Amino acid sequence: MPATKSFQKHIQFLRNDIEKAIHQIPLDKSPTYFYDPIKYVLNGKGKRLRPILVHLTGQIFSSDPEGLMKAAIAVELLHNFSLVHDDIMDEDDVRHGQPSVHKKWDNASAILAGDGLFVLSHLILTGLSPYVHQRFNEVTLAICEGQGMDKEFEDDASITMGNYLVMIGKKTGSLLGLSAEVGALIADGSKEAAHHLFEFGLNLGLAFQIQDDFLEIYSSESSMGKSLGSDIRSGKQTALTILAREKNPDQWSKFNKKKNSILAFQSYFESNGIKKETEKVIQHYIDKAQDGLNEFPEGKRENLNQFTTMILNRTY
Amino acid sequence: MPATKSFQKHIQFLRNDIEKAIHQIPLDKSPTYFYDPIKYVLNGKGKRLRPILVHLTGQIFSSDPEGLMKAAIAVELLHNFSLVHDDIMDEDDVRHGQPSVHKKWDNASAILAGDGLFVLSHLILTGLSPYVHQRFNEVTLAICEGQGMDKEFEDDASITMGNYLVMIGKKTGSLLGLSAEVGALIADGSKEAAHHLFEFGLNLGLAFQIQDDFLEIYSSESSMGKSLGSDIRSGKQTALTILAREKNPDQWSKFNKKKNSILAFQSYFESNGIKKETEKVIQHYIDKAQDGLNEFPEGKRENLNQFTTMILNRTY
Repeated sequence: MPATKSFQKHIQFLRNDIEKAIHQIPLDKSPTYFYDPIKYVLNGKGKRLRPILVHLTGQIFSSDPEGLMKAAIAVELLHNFSLVHDDIMDEDDVRHGQPSVHKKWDNASAILAGDGLFVLSHLILTGLSPYVHQRFNEVTLAICEGQGMDKEFEDDASITMGNYLVMIGKKTGSLLGLSAEVGALIADGSKEAAHHLFEFGLNLGLAFQIQDDFLEIYSSESSMGKSLGSDIRSGKQTALTILAREKNPDQWSKFNKKKNSILAFQSYFESNGIKKETEKVIQHYIDKAQDGLNEFPEGKRENLNQFTTMILNRTY
Repeated sequence: MPATKSFQKHIQFLRNDIEKAIHQIPLDKSPTYFYDPIKYVLNGKGKRLRPILVHLTGQIFSSDPEGLMKAAIAVELLHNFSLVHDDIMDEDDVRHGQPSVHKKWDNASAILAGDGLFVLSHLILTGLSPYVHQRFNEVTLAICEGQGMDKEFEDDASITMGNYLVMIGKKTGSLLGLSAEVGALIADGSKEAAHHLFEFGLNLGLAFQIQDDFLEIYSSESSMGKSLGSDIRSGKQTALTILAREKNPDQWSKFNKKKNSILAFQSYFESNGIKKETEKVIQHYIDKAQDGLNEFPEGKRENLNQFTTMILNRTY
């Protein structure tokens, strides 16, 4: 079931507000070496999903709009900091359909731009409660740990689905968790409510990332904005490759990952039941995310359910 | 006049306490990809000058020792974050006499280690006042801007001494300023006192950095821990090269910076009065730093004067 028209209008409204706020971040002109790459990133074509989520949960708690926007922008900058640095580490040359920072400039510029986005994200939080700062830092540490695991897991055939879920939980899930949680924190909501919202975002993040792995095989290059199968070929762990290995290690070890076509991957995963199993895992985490929302009255959780539908249908 | 014996004993005592606190930072074992380089950095041979300064000014205000140690460790981690990332950007392969992180591991590991040191520095500040957080972030932004200017200025013959002082003020001075200031902030000292201390640290940082430029020409490789003249040859601005250019642009433009020996540099700077002029500039900022301390009663500023002597004599 697609998200309703009125919800989509609401999202468009929020996104415009967020874009406006991002463009109002006071940034000096010089040194251009430092600020130009940062402006390039902030003018990029990000979908602003995380700040939208901040607003959606904040509205449940009638949080102070100014504090909410601060947290929303801070989450988006934190996300961009990690993308800019990850792109250097993973040698990914395209981001949101444009050259990544280290490709357009160089590694030094991209390292510094990432650092700057990180500091700006913290400066924007100025005035919010110490606990909000603490949660930002705890989640950033988790993101760094997740990226460390991602690099450590490359080409390691002993990685289990359990290891993988921990990794993507830290790398992708924790920031969506924070985005969902922070609206409650700003309104001084109960820690219990904040925790439920974090779990919602975390599970949504797991579903989203595993679906990303899925779409890297069963999608089109134009809709993904990158070449299909690139993660697998570069030795990254993905849900599908781990499930394939766990199901039939011998057969999978004989399948040539560097040379086989994307069609060969598709047929392997389909005939071995990996495609179906992956779809089941995705559904499992969608259900878990939505179950967590049952704590909230139906009227309040409606927007978060619609958000879930929207991001998993990739209609944003 | 060298620092007194009792002061040196006091410093040694502080340094031991700081080392102990650094080794008690709770760090997980895994992912080793993330934590091993961080531990390598923290076990390095840093002189801990910044956290020592935090303690010395904090003691003037009888600041809460626990908060003081948090701020001291946070400053040291922030310093190390910037060193690890700067070493990648500047392709410096040696730090404190050991391979720098990107040399011992690789760029990806070093980017992530720097990020981690930055986050940990913030996490350690948890519980201190919002204004302390704000000052940390403002200074970190200044450090990033300073590094951006440093890169931007490379090989640019139009850079003036004024430009250069702004750059090193941000890159080196601001963190020494913060280190001097934070002890007052933790004790809820007046903003005026905090400002005077920031100015003290800033001017001390300027003197220290210009002296560093000086020692890169008039020192020995063993005491500097790097090859003499390397900054100049890599196209970095230094106080001596700018003064030489400003004094006699034609003559300086004919002097071959890439090929001339360190002895040729020494004799050029000496015969053109650049050596003397640089010494004068260093003394100017030492005087300015110490003048700023006159706001404090003599007994209180004594340790800071001794600290100034110690770091400029490089007897730490």
